[in-house]
Amino acid sequence: MVNRTNISDFVIAPDPGRDGLTRKVTGRDHTGALQEISVVEERPLTIFLNAQEIVTAMTIGDYPDYLALGFLRNQGMLLADDQITAIDYDAELETVVVRTARKTDYEEKMRKKTRTSGCAVGTVFGDMMEGLEGLELPDCEVRTSWLYALARTINLTPSLYLEAGAIHGTVLCHKDKPLVYMEDVGRHNAVDKIAGWMLSSGEAAGDKILYTTGRLTSEMVIKTAMMGIPVLASRSGFTAWGIEIANELGLTLIGRMRGKRFICLSGEGRLIRDADPDLIKDEGQKTARKGAKNE
Amino acid sequence: MVNRTNISDFVIAPDPGRDGLTRKVTGRDHTGALQEISVVEERPLTIFLNAQEIVTAMTIGDYPDYLALGFLRNQGMLLADDQITAIDYDAELETVVVRTARKTDYEEKMRKKTRTSGCAVGTVFGDMMEGLEGLELPDCEVRTSWLYALARTINLTPSLYLEAGAIHGTVLCHKDKPLVYMEDVGRHNAVDKIAGWMLSSGEAAGDKILYTTGRLTSEMVIKTAMMGIPVLASRSGFTAWGIEIANELGLTLIGRMRGKRFICLSGEGRLIRDADPDLIKDEGQKTARKGAKNE
Repeated sequence: MVNRTNISDFVIAPDPGRDGLTRKVTGRDHTGALQEISVVEERPLTIFLNAQEIVTAMTIGDYPDYLALGFLRNQGMLLADDQITAIDYDAELETVVVRTARKTDYEEKMRKKTRTSGCAVGTVFGDMMEGLEGLELPDCEVRTSWLYALARTINLTPSLYLEAGAIHGTVLCHKDKPLVYMEDVGRHNAVDKIAGWMLSSGEAAGDKILYTTGRLTSEMVIKTAMMGIPVLASRSGFTAWGIEIANELGLTLIGRMRGKRFICLSGEGRLIRDADPDLIKDEGQKTARKGAKNE
Repeated sequence: MVNRTNISDFVIAPDPGRDGLTRKVTGRDHTGALQEISVVEERPLTIFLNAQEIVTAMTIGDYPDYLALGFLRNQGMLLADDQITAIDYDAELETVVVRTARKTDYEEKMRKKTRTSGCAVGTVFGDMMEGLEGLELPDCEVRTSWLYALARTINLTPSLYLEAGAIHGTVLCHKDKPLVYMEDVGRHNAVDKIAGWMLSSGEAAGDKILYTTGRLTSEMVIKTAMMGIPVLASRSGFTAWGIEIANELGLTLIGRMRGKRFICLSGEGRLIRDADPDLIKDEGQKTARKGAKNE
């Protein structure tokens, strides 16, 4: 499988063969025959910010440090200029502690939790747009030829999805190149791991495209904006509120991307339609990930 | 579309035409042409148990009473024998208050939240299996002919999914008949609405099958068991932990159901293979919901 696509451009590519991410299980198929399949792991990781326990995430378990950093950042509990003094991961205790120079206390914030449509102990609803006041997403360009190239490369990249399914992927991209491809059982974990990587590496956000396999809900749009990324694209569909927030924030929102098809519901101004859709092959059985209408 | 399947057997069927569940939005498609599409709504609903604010769920907004009841029951905050004295829904304030004869206080429980793989302010991790001690799921039978019939009927039933996509469905079934078909932006909401309906109607659980479009994660398995339903089936895949818990609880777990294919990874003993898979048509384009491997 490794030869199916050139993954040399990735800074981080999925590593489906890595120990501990999948497990072989045996069941009986429709004919009654024994069949062995690969399934993804799902394990708890408790995230602390300094002395305070914040949340227990269910995750495949790779990149606990990025997950913790990105989760805290996307919740607004880590500020952009916070100085991280340590990240301590304990595999046995299944905990990760992020330490900052600033003294933190989010007891009150944590009391009000939002159960979001998809996933995650979400952002506090009352504070959902907190940290986005005055946000200006840069006026970059997005070529449709890049979008088509990205979708194709991502669909062909060896991944846990192709190995075991039942997982979501999110990919940080620059022009037509995918850079960091994260997967997780919860799609929000995949996004948070990207955010954590960006925070760690100091990667610029304003010229990036975020590609996700998940639905474009309010929370996905808000997280993307929190990360400063002006373009969010997905194979899946939209919720009305996701579209509304994207329009409000001036974020380019592209969904139902499948083969040559897509629809842009916000931020059309950034799109440069340089590719002829009729020259784009429709997805074959092998590259078809799933229906474009759903998550 | 209404004629495509006989929905007369449903106690509750989806009502995709109902006001307020979808919205028309306009974007530009891959050719640059204006295109109007239907998208699902997503709105906050804050659930109270007596005087205590428990959670804000993002939901399509139908059946707030069932969602509140089922959420609280599946979190173990409502006990099986609790006397519900009132359910007050306020559409303007977007709140629903469930009142019980018993005095309740879940401050401590709420402090420890789990962010689950998929969705939802999940069950408290330390308490995840709470309420399941000594659970014995009944030793009923499940005919594969029922499973095939259910999948076919559900796929052809007019739904928000067929209308707008980006939504999950869960269906409570008896033998080969779907009874209650709930949809929501978060798949856990759909399950919770079923649980709320069962609690309200006093419907027996031991002879039911729960069908979901979502992945079979630990939390889905635990919720199904909490509801006392012995069989959980899905188009989607599994996580390793979901399978482990199903085996521990003796729950029949069937996934990757698509056309004639499926795989049973737990509770095979209940399955009666009375249908010849070769006589089952593979899914055509029109009935294909999405890839079997993913959520």
